[in-house]
Amino acid sequence: MNQHPIERLIEAADSAIRKEDFDTLIDIYADDAVLVITPGMNATGKAQIRKAFEAIAAHFSHNLDVRQAGMKILETGDTALVLARTIVSTPDTPPVSRNATYVFRKNPAGHWLCVIDNSYGHEMFSHQDA
Amino acid sequence: MNQHPIERLIEAADSAIRKEDFDTLIDIYADDAVLVITPGMNATGKAQIRKAFEAIAAHFSHNLDVRQAGMKILETGDTALVLARTIVSTPDTPPVSRNATYVFRKNPAGHWLCVIDNSYGHEMFSHQDA
Repeated sequence: MNQHPIERLIEAADSAIRKEDFDTLIDIYADDAVLVITPGMNATGKAQIRKAFEAIAAHFSHNLDVRQAGMKILETGDTALVLARTIVSTPDTPPVSRNATYVFRKNPAGHWLCVIDNSYGHEMFSHQDA
Repeated sequence: MNQHPIERLIEAADSAIRKEDFDTLIDIYADDAVLVITPGMNATGKAQIRKAFEAIAAHFSHNLDVRQAGMKILETGDTALVLARTIVSTPDTPPVSRNATYVFRKNPAGHWLCVIDNSYGHEMFSHQDA
């Protein structure tokens, strides 16, 4: 089966995170994208998202590994919802599995871009005033 | 705090489901919206979504109750991701809590419409080939 273009993008993003190739990573986001850094704290726009990933890389001693153990894509027109099993690990900690939710939009040139990156999914409820 | 317009829409949709007011319900969806009827089976477009809700109402003996126990909205530009704790119940069965995921888009007139309605969230992984 052919891979969905969004699956390829997410694999490229995971690889860019592992290599700390932030130029490649940031290209996957729309100009006004929102990244949930941690529940209750968001980065908005490419500059903030890049800074957040640099800080995350440093926080994990430049050994962060992010992979998807499975992905479901619900798509209509130029909008797609991705439900993923995201595995986050470092050499020093046991892998953590997250039920991540991502929203992608197709731009007028036909390229998918990430507009909402919420790797925490419903964990947002455990951390806040919900 | 003011309620987000999307929260009001979802409350109106839940009320419409309880009353089986399918005209009101279907107005909340975009023309090309996708509804996950059950993991692996989707309805696309207003006509299919309406039929699906009619079948769901009959399946639950016209006693279906849907409410949100909590909602988080991540919004950027004309796209919003909703993470909800959705409680589905009937008089004869214990309430079921679902980690629902909805995507809304703002149309050119400035009205939010549901484009992806996946009340099953990551339950999709338990039912399929992932």
